[in-house]
Amino acid sequence: MAPFKQGRRRAARVEIPESHPRYESLMTRHLVEDGVKAGMTAAAGLIAHGRGEAFDYLLGESTGVAGRAATAAAAAHLALAQRPVLSINGNAAVLAPQALAALQRALGCRVEINLFYRTPERVDKLVTHMEAAGCTDVLGRDAPAGAIPGLSHERSRSSPGGVVDADVVLVPLEDGDRCAALKDMGKTVLVVDLNPLSRTARAADVSITDNLVRAAPALADLVPRYQRNRDEALALLEAYDHEANLLQARREMAERLLDADF
Amino acid sequence: MAPFKQGRRRAARVEIPESHPRYESLMTRHLVEDGVKAGMTAAAGLIAHGRGEAFDYLLGESTGVAGRAATAAAAAHLALAQRPVLSINGNAAVLAPQALAALQRALGCRVEINLFYRTPERVDKLVTHMEAAGCTDVLGRDAPAGAIPGLSHERSRSSPGGVVDADVVLVPLEDGDRCAALKDMGKTVLVVDLNPLSRTARAADVSITDNLVRAAPALADLVPRYQRNRDEALALLEAYDHEANLLQARREMAERLLDADF
Repeated sequence: MAPFKQGRRRAARVEIPESHPRYESLMTRHLVEDGVKAGMTAAAGLIAHGRGEAFDYLLGESTGVAGRAATAAAAAHLALAQRPVLSINGNAAVLAPQALAALQRALGCRVEINLFYRTPERVDKLVTHMEAAGCTDVLGRDAPAGAIPGLSHERSRSSPGGVVDADVVLVPLEDGDRCAALKDMGKTVLVVDLNPLSRTARAADVSITDNLVRAAPALADLVPRYQRNRDEALALLEAYDHEANLLQARREMAERLLDADF
Repeated sequence: MAPFKQGRRRAARVEIPESHPRYESLMTRHLVEDGVKAGMTAAAGLIAHGRGEAFDYLLGESTGVAGRAATAAAAAHLALAQRPVLSINGNAAVLAPQALAALQRALGCRVEINLFYRTPERVDKLVTHMEAAGCTDVLGRDAPAGAIPGLSHERSRSSPGGVVDADVVLVPLEDGDRCAALKDMGKTVLVVDLNPLSRTARAADVSITDNLVRAAPALADLVPRYQRNRDEALALLEAYDHEANLLQARREMAERLLDADF
């Protein structure tokens, strides 16, 4: 998968053999550790990544039936949107920068840096990082407080043309409060969250229970299909059941726990 | 629970209300974040803590039937041991210092600092930290390489009188390689690991599938009972089934995933 070559090459210095059964997971972890060293990812992002690792482990570190269906629904929402916006935080930026840039190109949409632990320095670094990965017109630097009602001062910031002005937002790895606040603003909220029990997953319109390193390239691949086939996208969303999808994801993890061979 | 008062007081500055449904979990997380700031816990310890959080979430952040049974078995092993040793790493030291010191007092045993990312500075800080929490004669500073066969240079270190000379070792939050290497040396290996599927959990003689902040004080409480009642301890170990216990822990997590009200 070409989009991750850059990340892989940088992480390869830790010398984990490609034959290691959990090679992909360990390489992905190093992307987040490197992000913290570079001042792009918050230390709390390491804990969040660890939580995701555990749930991904229960998925067998591969995309399940629920994840695949939710990814298709999210791609359909994005393809049909008037003003989709991709919201990027420190973990998303280091895990899947090229795939998110490819998704922006497919949609012709805006990308905005939105952080939980916001400092101007981190926003600057992440804008530069996403532009280097191929994103254009990255928003987030000039973001007045209070733009998203119901959140604390620094967390309520959003730029004109950013998530506040979107009809459909993709907020990978987002926390429950911001997810709920965007829902309260009437947005269609699409999240990527490996925990199917989280407040974020429940509050969203579509929650992709999958690893962002797999979900982001899959979204970029699928969007053009639904842009060409709007009726297919509409039919898919008509039939999509968010609650049932989360339950399916939970069942897939439970099966793994109960599988004596795992 | 008095042993954690110090930790709680320090962490309380982040102002999470005690009424928050996940107050304990968030306070515990801040202990690890503070440990990283203090140079005692490695950044990778944050990822490991996040993985534990996810599995603890599936336990309902409370001790299950499997965790309780494994804790009793581990306490029995420790009470019957000739030369038990407690192995402490950066996460264990910040999560449960007072409870581990209480366990040392109950057993009259040695405590050794054993680190994955070992530096003399981290060992020094952790020895001082554990002594401040009430531990005595903390080993780990003067630890020759090669003491534990089969591990890489820095990871193979152990002090005379430390885990290398123990018959029973408690290695909370240990990785799979060291757990297996200690087993190969003929030790009885007791671990605390929230992931019942991990290599560590499988390789151990007893794996306590529980959060160390709950398991450590429970061990300190139980050990005197089995010291007084050696026959009870022997009978308990006679009946204990490690594989069945791990399967029970997996079932408890699967039930939570399948519980629609959770």
